[in-house]
Amino acid sequence: MGKKIVVGVIGSGRIGKVHAENIIRRIPDVTLKTIADINVEAAKPWIQDLGIPKTTKDYKDILKDPEIQAVLICSSTSTHAQFSIECAQAKKDCFCEKPIDFDIKRIYEVLDVVKKAGINYQIGFNRRFDHNFRRVREVAKSGEIGDIHIVKVTSRDPDYSIDYIRESAKAGGIYYDMTIHDFDMIRYLSGMDVEEVYAQGGALIDPRIGEAGDIDTTMVTMKFKGGALGYIDNSRRAVYGYDQRVEVFGTKGMAVVGNDRPSIAEVYTKDQPKTDKIHYFFLERYNDAFIDELKEFFAAVRDDKPTPVTGNDGLQAVLIAAAAKRSLLEHRPVKLSEVDVAPAAKKK
Amino acid sequence: MGKKIVVGVIGSGRIGKVHAENIIRRIPDVTLKTIADINVEAAKPWIQDLGIPKTTKDYKDILKDPEIQAVLICSSTSTHAQFSIECAQAKKDCFCEKPIDFDIKRIYEVLDVVKKAGINYQIGFNRRFDHNFRRVREVAKSGEIGDIHIVKVTSRDPDYSIDYIRESAKAGGIYYDMTIHDFDMIRYLSGMDVEEVYAQGGALIDPRIGEAGDIDTTMVTMKFKGGALGYIDNSRRAVYGYDQRVEVFGTKGMAVVGNDRPSIAEVYTKDQPKTDKIHYFFLERYNDAFIDELKEFFAAVRDDKPTPVTGNDGLQAVLIAAAAKRSLLEHRPVKLSEVDVAPAAKKK
Amino acid sequence: MGKKIVVGVIGSGRIGKVHAENIIRRIPDVTLKTIADINVEAAKPWIQDLGIPKTTKDYKDILKDPEIQAVLICSSTSTHAQFSIECAQAKKDCFCEKPIDFDIKRIYEVLDVVKKAGINYQIGFNRRFDHNFRRVREVAKSGEIGDIHIVKVTSRDPDYSIDYIRESAKAGGIYYDMTIHDFDMIRYLSGMDVEEVYAQGGALIDPRIGEAGDIDTTMVTMKFKGGALGYIDNSRRAVYGYDQRVEVFGTKGMAVVGNDRPSIAEVYTKDQPKTDKIHYFFLERYNDAFIDELKEFFAAVRDDKPTPVTGNDGLQAVLIAAAAKRSLLEHRPVKLSEVDVAPAAKKK
Amino acid sequence: MGKKIVVGVIGSGRIGKVHAENIIRRIPDVTLKTIADINVEAAKPWIQDLGIPKTTKDYKDILKDPEIQAVLICSSTSTHAQFSIECAQAKKDCFCEKPIDFDIKRIYEVLDVVKKAGINYQIGFNRRFDHNFRRVREVAKSGEIGDIHIVKVTSRDPDYSIDYIRESAKAGGIYYDMTIHDFDMIRYLSGMDVEEVYAQGGALIDPRIGEAGDIDTTMVTMKFKGGALGYIDNSRRAVYGYDQRVEVFGTKGMAVVGNDRPSIAEVYTKDQPKTDKIHYFFLERYNDAFIDELKEFFAAVRDDKPTPVTGNDGLQAVLIAAAAKRSLLEHRPVKLSEVDVAPAAKKK
Repeated sequence: MGKKIVVGVIGSGRIGKVHAENIIRRIPDVTLKTIADINVEAAKPWIQDLGIPKTTKDYKDILKDPEIQAVLICSSTSTHAQFSIECAQAKKDCFCEKPIDFDIKRIYEVLDVVKKAGINYQIGFNRRFDHNFRRVREVAKSGEIGDIHIVKVTSRDPDYSIDYIRESAKAGGIYYDMTIHDFDMIRYLSGMDVEEVYAQGGALIDPRIGEAGDIDTTMVTMKFKGGALGYIDNSRRAVYGYDQRVEVFGTKGMAVVGNDRPSIAEVYTKDQPKTDKIHYFFLERYNDAFIDELKEFFAAVRDDKPTPVTGNDGLQAVLIAAAAKRSLLEHRPVKLSEVDVAPAAKKK
Repeated sequence: MGKKIVVGVIGSGRIGKVHAENIIRRIPDVTLKTIADINVEAAKPWIQDLGIPKTTKDYKDILKDPEIQAVLICSSTSTHAQFSIECAQAKKDCFCEKPIDFDIKRIYEVLDVVKKAGINYQIGFNRRFDHNFRRVREVAKSGEIGDIHIVKVTSRDPDYSIDYIRESAKAGGIYYDMTIHDFDMIRYLSGMDVEEVYAQGGALIDPRIGEAGDIDTTMVTMKFKGGALGYIDNSRRAVYGYDQRVEVFGTKGMAVVGNDRPSIAEVYTKDQPKTDKIHYFFLERYNDAFIDELKEFFAAVRDDKPTPVTGNDGLQAVLIAAAAKRSLLEHRPVKLSEVDVAPAAKKK
Repeated sequence: MGKKIVVGVIGSGRIGKVHAENIIRRIPDVTLKTIADINVEAAKPWIQDLGIPKTTKDYKDILKDPEIQAVLICSSTSTHAQFSIECAQAKKDCFCEKPIDFDIKRIYEVLDVVKKAGINYQIGFNRRFDHNFRRVREVAKSGEIGDIHIVKVTSRDPDYSIDYIRESAKAGGIYYDMTIHDFDMIRYLSGMDVEEVYAQGGALIDPRIGEAGDIDTTMVTMKFKGGALGYIDNSRRAVYGYDQRVEVFGTKGMAVVGNDRPSIAEVYTKDQPKTDKIHYFFLERYNDAFIDELKEFFAAVRDDKPTPVTGNDGLQAVLIAAAAKRSLLEHRPVKLSEVDVAPAAKKK
Repeated sequence: MGKKIVVGVIGSGRIGKVHAENIIRRIPDVTLKTIADINVEAAKPWIQDLGIPKTTKDYKDILKDPEIQAVLICSSTSTHAQFSIECAQAKKDCFCEKPIDFDIKRIYEVLDVVKKAGINYQIGFNRRFDHNFRRVREVAKSGEIGDIHIVKVTSRDPDYSIDYIRESAKAGGIYYDMTIHDFDMIRYLSGMDVEEVYAQGGALIDPRIGEAGDIDTTMVTMKFKGGALGYIDNSRRAVYGYDQRVEVFGTKGMAVVGNDRPSIAEVYTKDQPKTDKIHYFFLERYNDAFIDELKEFFAAVRDDKPTPVTGNDGLQAVLIAAAAKRSLLEHRPVKLSEVDVAPAAKKK
């Protein structure tokens, strides 16, 4: 299997745990040496159960460890930019959960440091690694369906906790927290950048979400550079499960994909025919995608090749989120150039 | 079967022929007595083949015939309003192809005359009678999926003739000609009226369509009264066939329906598994819907009960089309109240 | 439409009514002049409602009517052979419901008379005209799936009346009444004749069926001439509806088809996703097939070309039924040659 | 994770490698210490790559190792019985690949020793652990579809090597090598034992298979104790992939399941709509099932609870195979009691 890559994880919350377990149980050629978290004590039981050798309250212990080659930033969003910069300065390859930051200027700073350091840097847009979406992307990329005219993303969560929503609302709301995945998905599927966004929505499910200053239901349409059209809808509550579907339409055809289910069994009784429910939420639906995003990150690290989700991908998703939010507030279509603080510096 | 309803058809073009054949071959309790058309000579072969007793160049022959109880207006759009008014004045029940008119003020005049005359008046939005869309509507109406939050309509033609598009562009373009069916569908599925529209699109398929002053690809999003959201996309060319799908999402679930095919056989070979192509165009897809819209019209005539597609339905679809067109031109969301010339007179 | 074919129907029971209605409502180029039945009085209401001009208690009135060109034999099975022979002698083209007779020798007599008379003779195996099975047959016939190795037919009724079963048991039981359709289907799909049959089954649903001397559940496997294999299963009660599926497997692939539904809508709620129930029974499922079998019969009559279901097809299905019944009773595989009373006379 | 179970694997061929890789990469709470094979040298590269500490030419090294708690018998079929007996005598829990033996008397000997030793003993019928078949079994077991009347298994390989077939033919042929999995599946799905079997088939694909004394296409029908009916069909070559489907029909309904695919994406172009091909063969289709059968075996070992596939399951499948083979040769239905050499000793 070659020499194992030694990694450290910063953050022992939910997503940190997901990645740690996947590394240990499903990625045999990588060694997870250290987990850092100010509150690492709370996570000790599962950390020990997984047999991870080292824990620390100070993330700098990871950055200073010469044996550690790559770092996963799974801490709270407010720390992503700072930790990314320090990783880059410590010459550690870095996998950073989304979003890099809510502040576009700050993202440019991070990308600048990362670029100069020459590290491998990957953003945690896990859905790109879903086997179904990958297949649609492959078809789109292959030219089988021609030039792309329309891309559609349906993305609905099964449910929410009002506390989570209130936290999210403070940090920017639905476009930065939930739709951001779809903004990335629509760029991934189309291979195109977005030029303009129009967003509408409301608190249709729960007035408390409106009181928190956020919406729970939204439609966002967009124009890609070149004129093609994009569409996303979100709901915070789809009682039937985690509804994640995409469609790409072009001059030569269409590729679509729906929701996977635990099994494809069908049951016929005197009532209406039934199938399994769709997967309940992201851990069920994207379990393999979480593993594959790390596998590809580690492959990039091992062979020093480009990561499959770049810093620019992280930036673009936040730019679209910022435009969507402004569109909603100002009730008009908004160009990404209106929210991009450093368009002059952009080079793509 | 009771006494047969005697009808006349004004217009012997494509849609007139469709309705005439359906009445004769599939609706045994109705007698088609007369077809009127200035160019009725051109249609003589199929009229005789169907055994229709009378033809005339003057539509007034139909209006004056005391034996004729109901009239189908299948002539060109520019005549719909005038013929509707004359039918009403002649106390003939009237089935009028869509749209009533492009001019909103004129539509109000028609509806006023129709109302005063007390005739049965039905607009030819045939898709409401599609068995699949009906099922989705039934589910939505039953409350099984709760309060409606999102309604989506995909509607793409297989192909176009540039001559047809040029004619259509002169008469108002894609929103009055093609999307108008979807504007009605979204009202039908949701049971709600539209408040505001945002439209975007372009001539992505064929620059000649742009030169004609029209677009060939569009996304229209809308806000219903009450806050729910609607979405439509159109393309003039879906190479895989006539793509007509809908989705209704609510607080308690979702109802969706895709495209029917000639058969549901599946073929597995060394290549990828294949199914039948979807129906090629509207005559294949909506054949039974064309029959059922007439059956329900004649049932309304026979029992003097409300028609399933009213004059107001015809009006609303044109109002949405007008708002969509203005939205596209002015690059901003447009309220229906901005285009409604007679909002004060409206009572619903 | 050319000159109308004038027909008479013998038998005003359920299937006679189905055919009469279809001729009048859906087959405009055929005129139904006379219905004959000893008990024709009981059917008067619907006969008058359909506007059929003539009724008679004596079927010979139809055979003697020089205006009548074709006759549909829809009377009880015991009369099929006699009426077929008299039709042939009267030089009327003849559509005869299945089975021709339960007695194989008698069938040979009928086929002999029919042949000598040179009339068009079609057996009422309506399922051959189902659009889904036709598609599978087309694929199989085209060579797309290569040489056929395996043909499977699933055929289950939704429910039964015990009185009907008792009548059926007296007349030969499940293989002559229910499976006979599948025996024809398997020949239709494969284009091959059957050489040997093995049948097993039991009264698993209802002991009263066993007491009546019949079974309610069966599997029949068979070897075609040439070595390919066939399989049929039947149940008298599939609580979920009329379950009619087929599969053809060959050297280059497979064609399969399942059950149609009233709509293809899908409903997602907090419970398991649901679709429409499959069609309840044969009138729903095979409605169009009943129409198409008559249309093709009348086309054969009009153009004096071969009928799509021949007298030999009627014979073969009864031969397989006879072999299946003997196999069940004798608990061993049975060759068709064992039950064929006139193999020497056979010419195919 | 508790104390790790230490295991040894006997046999370093294809299936030994599959299990070894799964233990190391996917089952973190089990340690694979030793692999034994007379030709272990040939497997050294992958054994070292996986980091397995010990290899030996002598399987007795595993049996004598006090640290090793459980043994996987993955050697050639002719050794299964002997190694099972020695494992039992050495008090090692034992996972034995199917079949235990071709000789029924020998199987009884093995089961006797295993029983007296009190070890955990599991047979490698991996398909029971497929998530789709499990779901069908759960539905059947739950009573949701009532009493079972019909069970159907379709099982077709994508292709074969003639050398493999020739080896298989010498060892008993298709029923012992391929259908044996389906014999187990039909017992698993139904929860019932088989009473009588009728088999037919031929060398339809390849005359060389016939020359080798085997068949390549077969249908086997069976009667369960209690009267329900079972059906299996096999082909050695389904060009479209590994076709593995089941259906269970009962008094209250039906559960069915088809073939999984790498993705559920659909592609629509001017040609017929396409999906992904079904999984090509057993490693793709049953990858997770191979892992889960071991996980459940190790869970049984750890907690000393019954294994999910017992020695009797191994016996029954061979009994059905023996009856099927005799049925084919003697062209008649065969009862399992005819081939069961020790019916008196049987205790279930």
